[in-house]
Amino acid sequence: MRKIGISEIEDIALGAALLGAGGGGDPYVGKLVAIGAVKECGEVTLLDPEEVPDDALVIPIAMMGAPTVLAEKAIGGNEYKTLYDMVSRFFGKKVYAFLPIEAGGVNSMLPIAACARLGLPLVDADGMGRAFPELQMVTFTIGGMSASPMALTDEKGNCVIFETITNKWTEELARAVTMSCGGSVSVSLYPMTGVQMKQYAVKNIVTRSQKLGEAIRTVKDSGSKTPEEHFLEFSGGFRLFRGKIVDVLRETRGAFNFGKVVLEGIGDYKGQSAYVEFQNENLTATVEGEILATTPDLICLVDTETFAPVTTDALKYGKRVLVVGLKCFDLWRTPAGLDLVGPRYFGVDTDYIPIEIRCKGGNS
Amino acid sequence: MRKIGISEIEDIALGAALLGAGGGGDPYVGKLVAIGAVKECGEVTLLDPEEVPDDALVIPIAMMGAPTVLAEKAIGGNEYKTLYDMVSRFFGKKVYAFLPIEAGGVNSMLPIAACARLGLPLVDADGMGRAFPELQMVTFTIGGMSASPMALTDEKGNCVIFETITNKWTEELARAVTMSCGGSVSVSLYPMTGVQMKQYAVKNIVTRSQKLGEAIRTVKDSGSKTPEEHFLEFSGGFRLFRGKIVDVLRETRGAFNFGKVVLEGIGDYKGQSAYVEFQNENLTATVEGEILATTPDLICLVDTETFAPVTTDALKYGKRVLVVGLKCFDLWRTPAGLDLVGPRYFGVDTDYIPIEIRCKGGNS
Repeated sequence: MRKIGISEIEDIALGAALLGAGGGGDPYVGKLVAIGAVKECGEVTLLDPEEVPDDALVIPIAMMGAPTVLAEKAIGGNEYKTLYDMVSRFFGKKVYAFLPIEAGGVNSMLPIAACARLGLPLVDADGMGRAFPELQMVTFTIGGMSASPMALTDEKGNCVIFETITNKWTEELARAVTMSCGGSVSVSLYPMTGVQMKQYAVKNIVTRSQKLGEAIRTVKDSGSKTPEEHFLEFSGGFRLFRGKIVDVLRETRGAFNFGKVVLEGIGDYKGQSAYVEFQNENLTATVEGEILATTPDLICLVDTETFAPVTTDALKYGKRVLVVGLKCFDLWRTPAGLDLVGPRYFGVDTDYIPIEIRCKGGNS
Repeated sequence: MRKIGISEIEDIALGAALLGAGGGGDPYVGKLVAIGAVKECGEVTLLDPEEVPDDALVIPIAMMGAPTVLAEKAIGGNEYKTLYDMVSRFFGKKVYAFLPIEAGGVNSMLPIAACARLGLPLVDADGMGRAFPELQMVTFTIGGMSASPMALTDEKGNCVIFETITNKWTEELARAVTMSCGGSVSVSLYPMTGVQMKQYAVKNIVTRSQKLGEAIRTVKDSGSKTPEEHFLEFSGGFRLFRGKIVDVLRETRGAFNFGKVVLEGIGDYKGQSAYVEFQNENLTATVEGEILATTPDLICLVDTETFAPVTTDALKYGKRVLVVGLKCFDLWRTPAGLDLVGPRYFGVDTDYIPIEIRCKGGNS
């Protein structure tokens, strides 16, 4: 158990945006919401997963929709209380704590804001260990848990509760409502007991985000190593490419941001080209026609100078980025995990090969 | 209080299809569902609205979506029980009775099936006195009542509860879910007390449907009058046109059936032409370029021989129809009523003029 204040939030936002793998939204927007809530209501208690009682009701809180929409559409302050009330009423039981559903610039932050405003603790765990675009894409689904009852509310006060036959149906129906509500909403799903959370959640992800953020912030203090070497070391990353953005193709469709960013090599990579495809999050990294990394491993673009993560909605012509691959959480590499989030689910016609095998003999 | 059995259902289906004003679905499909339930579970008790206790919880049951879809997509048997459970659980109170939300071939029938299967009484009242395409278009909206909490379930078992800030938002969000569920679902909305029902519902609509159905069935036994004169007399209808269908334009969009049927005059109307536009229900009747009737008055097409109503999904080339206008329920003619269901709401650029004024000096 420890406290999270403003300086912790700064680092968590930065590190979580890296783990967002291009998605998860703008850490600047997320940070403002969390810092605003903490300034107004006080610091938040972060619980180690093992500190949560087995029979406690814990619920993930998240924003659903296209991150590009969120940047323009306000988040109100009452959504968390509304979600709390909807879930408590449904179960006839108090909610013990919130947790994030994914790591990302926005969805790592909103649960902190929610905890601050409601005086609840935050659990140091999530359901992805990164960000993914669809709501059934959580370790909890692998554990056979239901996304239902799922509570959804918008900034206007509309409320919907879904109880569906599969998590894919929850996604289908909640996505339709999200679009009708203007493209982004606040949700709570996968309500669970402490014991379920301990069994399937990705543990200590908030702390990992914070450490990554702190390391990025101090990346220049790298002693004898270059900042890039230092970055690759502390992040456990594989260097896939370094280049300048020469084209960004983007389409907002079905409340997702689809697209592709094309890179022209710089430094060691001069004369080479690469591209990264995304659906909110980066899906594949292809260098000189060869796929070097695919979902569910994390493909992250970071600024070549500051090593700050560059989300898909912040891509723009001329920006110089390092493309880095990070190993995903173990459960994603199981057959059940790959069914949910492997390349073929996203329409990419290639087998999943772990990044450390694809990059054998490469950098890092 | 009286009993509804198979012969009553036959007449109610026929009369309600007339009041459906082109919409409300295929009475044949509706009838099969209701008769099946009554054969299996016994007759249904029909309550006069005044027999319902003031504090009783009564809920309308309906199918939402495009009637053309319903004809191909099965209605299961468990939906009513599911809706009952969702609403009872929400209020922590037993549901006393069901009522129809509208008059129409399908939505007059499903509540009968629901009552048979759950052993509940049916209230002789609805919220429209005809059919309309959107769910906020009920007298209960004029009474300031909320469509929320609205319960929705599909034949697969997906369940959704909506609590929205306005009835227009309920329509918006429930429509999106309806489309995602395949275009038709079962719903319960406008949960109300007995006293609210007595104040705003269109009373004795089931009985009116039954009488109209009986009269259509026996239209040939008209003594000295022609069947058409007899039909216009007992229905209180205004004759707008008689013609042969020469064209049907149809489009299923946003879970609605939009379209236009073009008629070529026969008999007294030889040489004239007319058209009727619809969105599930008929919206306007235009004869020789002049609008003779608009929503919310009822525009009904009936077979020139049998006087059986022809719904918009049953329109086809060559069919000979009589176009008849019926006065709508008084509340629809108030400013609040016309805001909800007047011609301009549907994008028809004309004022509402009551049918008896538009047709002054005409037939009937």
